[in-house]
Amino acid sequence: MIIIMSSGVGDEQIDGVVRKLKEFGLDSNVSRGVERTVIGAIGDETKIDKELLQALPGVEDVIRVMKPYKIVARSYHKEDTVIDIGGVKLGGNQVQIIAGPCSVETQPQMDEAAKYVAEAGCRMMRGGAFKPRTSPYSFQGTGVEGLEMFRTAAEKYHMPIVTELMDVRMLDTFLDHDVDVIQIGTRNMQNFDLLKEVGRTHKPVILKRGMSATISEWLMAAEYIAAGGNHNIIFCERGVRSFETYYRNMLDVTAIPVLKKETHLPVIVDPSHAGGKAWMVPQLSRAAIAAGADGLLVEMHPTPCDAWCDADQALGPQELKELMVSLRLIAQAIGRDL
Amino acid sequence: MIIIMSSGVGDEQIDGVVRKLKEFGLDSNVSRGVERTVIGAIGDETKIDKELLQALPGVEDVIRVMKPYKIVARSYHKEDTVIDIGGVKLGGNQVQIIAGPCSVETQPQMDEAAKYVAEAGCRMMRGGAFKPRTSPYSFQGTGVEGLEMFRTAAEKYHMPIVTELMDVRMLDTFLDHDVDVIQIGTRNMQNFDLLKEVGRTHKPVILKRGMSATISEWLMAAEYIAAGGNHNIIFCERGVRSFETYYRNMLDVTAIPVLKKETHLPVIVDPSHAGGKAWMVPQLSRAAIAAGADGLLVEMHPTPCDAWCDADQALGPQELKELMVSLRLIAQAIGRDL
Amino acid sequence: MIIIMSSGVGDEQIDGVVRKLKEFGLDSNVSRGVERTVIGAIGDETKIDKELLQALPGVEDVIRVMKPYKIVARSYHKEDTVIDIGGVKLGGNQVQIIAGPCSVETQPQMDEAAKYVAEAGCRMMRGGAFKPRTSPYSFQGTGVEGLEMFRTAAEKYHMPIVTELMDVRMLDTFLDHDVDVIQIGTRNMQNFDLLKEVGRTHKPVILKRGMSATISEWLMAAEYIAAGGNHNIIFCERGVRSFETYYRNMLDVTAIPVLKKETHLPVIVDPSHAGGKAWMVPQLSRAAIAAGADGLLVEMHPTPCDAWCDADQALGPQELKELMVSLRLIAQAIGRDL
Amino acid sequence: MIIIMSSGVGDEQIDGVVRKLKEFGLDSNVSRGVERTVIGAIGDETKIDKELLQALPGVEDVIRVMKPYKIVARSYHKEDTVIDIGGVKLGGNQVQIIAGPCSVETQPQMDEAAKYVAEAGCRMMRGGAFKPRTSPYSFQGTGVEGLEMFRTAAEKYHMPIVTELMDVRMLDTFLDHDVDVIQIGTRNMQNFDLLKEVGRTHKPVILKRGMSATISEWLMAAEYIAAGGNHNIIFCERGVRSFETYYRNMLDVTAIPVLKKETHLPVIVDPSHAGGKAWMVPQLSRAAIAAGADGLLVEMHPTPCDAWCDADQALGPQELKELMVSLRLIAQAIGRDL
Repeated sequence: MIIIMSSGVGDEQIDGVVRKLKEFGLDSNVSRGVERTVIGAIGDETKIDKELLQALPGVEDVIRVMKPYKIVARSYHKEDTVIDIGGVKLGGNQVQIIAGPCSVETQPQMDEAAKYVAEAGCRMMRGGAFKPRTSPYSFQGTGVEGLEMFRTAAEKYHMPIVTELMDVRMLDTFLDHDVDVIQIGTRNMQNFDLLKEVGRTHKPVILKRGMSATISEWLMAAEYIAAGGNHNIIFCERGVRSFETYYRNMLDVTAIPVLKKETHLPVIVDPSHAGGKAWMVPQLSRAAIAAGADGLLVEMHPTPCDAWCDADQALGPQELKELMVSLRLIAQAIGRDL
Repeated sequence: MIIIMSSGVGDEQIDGVVRKLKEFGLDSNVSRGVERTVIGAIGDETKIDKELLQALPGVEDVIRVMKPYKIVARSYHKEDTVIDIGGVKLGGNQVQIIAGPCSVETQPQMDEAAKYVAEAGCRMMRGGAFKPRTSPYSFQGTGVEGLEMFRTAAEKYHMPIVTELMDVRMLDTFLDHDVDVIQIGTRNMQNFDLLKEVGRTHKPVILKRGMSATISEWLMAAEYIAAGGNHNIIFCERGVRSFETYYRNMLDVTAIPVLKKETHLPVIVDPSHAGGKAWMVPQLSRAAIAAGADGLLVEMHPTPCDAWCDADQALGPQELKELMVSLRLIAQAIGRDL
Repeated sequence: MIIIMSSGVGDEQIDGVVRKLKEFGLDSNVSRGVERTVIGAIGDETKIDKELLQALPGVEDVIRVMKPYKIVARSYHKEDTVIDIGGVKLGGNQVQIIAGPCSVETQPQMDEAAKYVAEAGCRMMRGGAFKPRTSPYSFQGTGVEGLEMFRTAAEKYHMPIVTELMDVRMLDTFLDHDVDVIQIGTRNMQNFDLLKEVGRTHKPVILKRGMSATISEWLMAAEYIAAGGNHNIIFCERGVRSFETYYRNMLDVTAIPVLKKETHLPVIVDPSHAGGKAWMVPQLSRAAIAAGADGLLVEMHPTPCDAWCDADQALGPQELKELMVSLRLIAQAIGRDL
Repeated sequence: MIIIMSSGVGDEQIDGVVRKLKEFGLDSNVSRGVERTVIGAIGDETKIDKELLQALPGVEDVIRVMKPYKIVARSYHKEDTVIDIGGVKLGGNQVQIIAGPCSVETQPQMDEAAKYVAEAGCRMMRGGAFKPRTSPYSFQGTGVEGLEMFRTAAEKYHMPIVTELMDVRMLDTFLDHDVDVIQIGTRNMQNFDLLKEVGRTHKPVILKRGMSATISEWLMAAEYIAAGGNHNIIFCERGVRSFETYYRNMLDVTAIPVLKKETHLPVIVDPSHAGGKAWMVPQLSRAAIAAGADGLLVEMHPTPCDAWCDADQALGPQELKELMVSLRLIAQAIGRDL
């Protein structure tokens, strides 16, 4: 930790910082420059809060030199982590496209969706039984019954299922239904109690980025899960809030190489929620794979115009098929397969 | 709802929209302009999802003409709602300053804090027993024991207490300890299950704005609480995420007049979390009251340099006293008292 | 300047940084911590570009400890700078409200506007003769003729005039017409050639904040003017771009105390362009003065509904009069007059 | 144009809107819904300002149904526009990588740079002679002399040159030196006088996106150039300002498909200024091409560690070579060549 003092501070204020550091077991290296005095804290900087030092008289700024994340950091585990999801490997050389409808509606809809997803060549399926909706008056999901319909539909094609958990009280139900991958949605990225609970299971977790979460906050949210013992974490970039109104969210494609550098965990992208329009999905999907994403979460509905939610962002079955063909070529261009 | 068609669409696509509207019980008013055809949906537009129409062929854009919020809307209740919190009125002519430490630490700290808060002339007290922290390795709050210390300290001065609820499973404990005002934090603004549960109680709820929530999303989050039957909702602006790095969050002072226009519910401001620095708190507090806020949530610690969290943003006891004097003058300048 | 090395770097990389610093005349203080090596550069850090060091092998981050701005910095001139504009003092104890129409339209419109501005008690007038419009097909201003109409109208009430300069080639015309205050608009905040040219004059300059300029970039833009010899600079906060769509821009009220701390120059606020709606202007104006602004730029049109541009954000004459009454009370509440 | 009235307005207010529309030559279609009255304006909506209507009593919102851009719109010219730059085609099937140093430093530096750019297989070269720098105390470019060094270096390899114009007074010098492509930088995207002047030439213009410009504002800035008669416009996405601090700007990859839909003009991407770090350039470059960009502006310096500006974002010669190989594979995967 580096403490930058205001210009013109006296010895008393410098000593105050040194004393406070010592209180927390840290040594100091005081460097009196021409313009400013800078104090280096030597030792384990996690022992002391940055804000505590910032509150001391004469302190202008405090800068951490260590990354706050540990288990999820690349330095903790040099190799890429490959997560095994019912035999499907995520994070390795093979790119995984996880497709399916926004929400689970009926058994026939899910049966049809599963057929199309499998036919297109995808190995995992997505679908929401519990839906986080902006309005309390909108359709809130088919719930537990939806979980069952989803499981029944996907089983026929041996596809592991991905579905969102919103309420900590539903975790046992998810485990009872043997959901293969638990998705933590954007609005719950910093629902710390929920993160702690899924951290106690061994289920793979897809952690979506918060609406305007920094990459560092996102890594720290994953650290909450990891600290509980569950290291099967998959980051999912889904666009962030911006000033642009043409599309729903701004896909942060740069987050892909940044995460691949900072963490050993897999990174996937949700191009459907990012752009919010089906016609943008192919280009955003190609960009994501070209930038190094390990997979995608894509919305596909058997008949998009009848979808119960987010109808305008779902691909139709034929579009998904074509997307898969085009993504395979991109994957190959960067030495991966799909 | 207004449906704007792409230029050059044919009758088939226009009919498709009209048919879909009819399916949901809505009539249509088709207006064929020089450049574009525009379809007005006549009837209750909440019956149909905007996205469903957007997914239809030939539709360029869909615009809602009704506000999505109902109970919280000013049109639902023309007069300002005044909430009674143990005899203290929030939302009326008197401005309320709710002060106290970021986190409950020890009984002596809380006793001292309560004394200073009351002495400064505040009528309510704040303090966090459960803390949402970015890092799993940071201090997470004193928990239930903290609630008790807080209650004991505030009771002596007959001050109602405000404290944050993060986990839906703790709600009963909050009710058992008779917490006067439940605070829903920034990270939980769209934790819909939590909102639904506090909506079933009759406790006043302070709903902080999400990190980058639009005012409309914020109103809809409040609608989740209101829809459950609890109309005792207080909005708290606490700054939003921005590109500026000089301070922690950008206080959205414009949100104050906007909320006063859109909703009948009280609006308060948290200048401490907004700026993130104690030295900015007086100016931001004055701006908030001058812009029409009904109150403030201010951090005060008996000895800020020893605070266990957010030490750099807490006022000291003397600073709080001086702030109250200056805020009283601002309140009087706009015809209110404090 | 502090150079933070990546973890695990060797002596060769550390020596590379030390050598590069020496090349630019700076000494080094190498501190080898448990986790990382940190190098402090001792000497005048403005001699070397941060990016140059960041490009060296093994460098993780480079942090400046000196502020990049000099003449505009508070440390350069401890007292508040008070600018004399034709006898009207800006930056002192008296708050100045500069009012007038968005654009100069006709002589009668300007004559009437001037009358109302003076009657309301304002001492300076604003009006645009050259208008930066998003569309090339929108009204672009009345130009030089507009300058003359403006001058004629304001002279009668001895009010100095404020008007925007967009094109460096028009500077001589502005000087010929003896414009009292040159306004540099949001879109030109980093038009460095324009800044350099107004820096060579002695005319007071209102420098509006760029659409999403950081406070530091804004101060550096002012430094361009100051470096040319013109220290008569007035900062004008006018809202920044954000994700919120309810209003036009997000007024950054926090920028006021921040600027008052960082610079000795006056700070004013434009509540009309910030909110973009006349009905918000009173609340935003009060917030700005309460937060410490030295003045305001407010749009007033004799008949807002007929304004040639930005009609929805202009106050009417009576509204301006009432605003002045209310702002006088706020100014007095913080010990200033108006 | 659609005018949405506030709920509960009377006939007088509706008539006011209809009258105002008639004044500007537009007819009205009044639709009285259950909740609100909506007025459709029939005729050429560009004749009237949205703000003028918004200022009328009883008007809640005004929505345009026509795109404000004309010449640059895809509807104006269905086919992709291919721009011929000294024989090199931009906007067609072949992807163009334009490489070179951030700034022109010396003749040997430029000679070497040109050699490496040509050797890597690029057909155009970039380099800045006039540099927009945040600080007035930073290196401001080698100016006219730089233009000459650049021309000399590039000529040997028959590469057209791209360089930035900041000051309208330098346009003649640019034309005298026969600069092949004029670049308008981020900070000048809405320097309307500069846009008008380059609009009077026939030189191809690269128009970089403003720091936080919406896509619509960007298209309108291009419309300023096009309205002057110059249709040789190339959009360059270079990242926008965001809350994320890990990298310099957030590359808006979604802008690529959006622009390809809205305009017939070529779209390129500057991955170097977007990320601000050389190590991110390959991934961002691949993403851009995969998303459909027609080319890239990439920074390459013969010896990045000695660059006079932005040293940390320049690729070295070998890195450029490798990037070209990898981009060729991506281009082929989507059916283009490079």
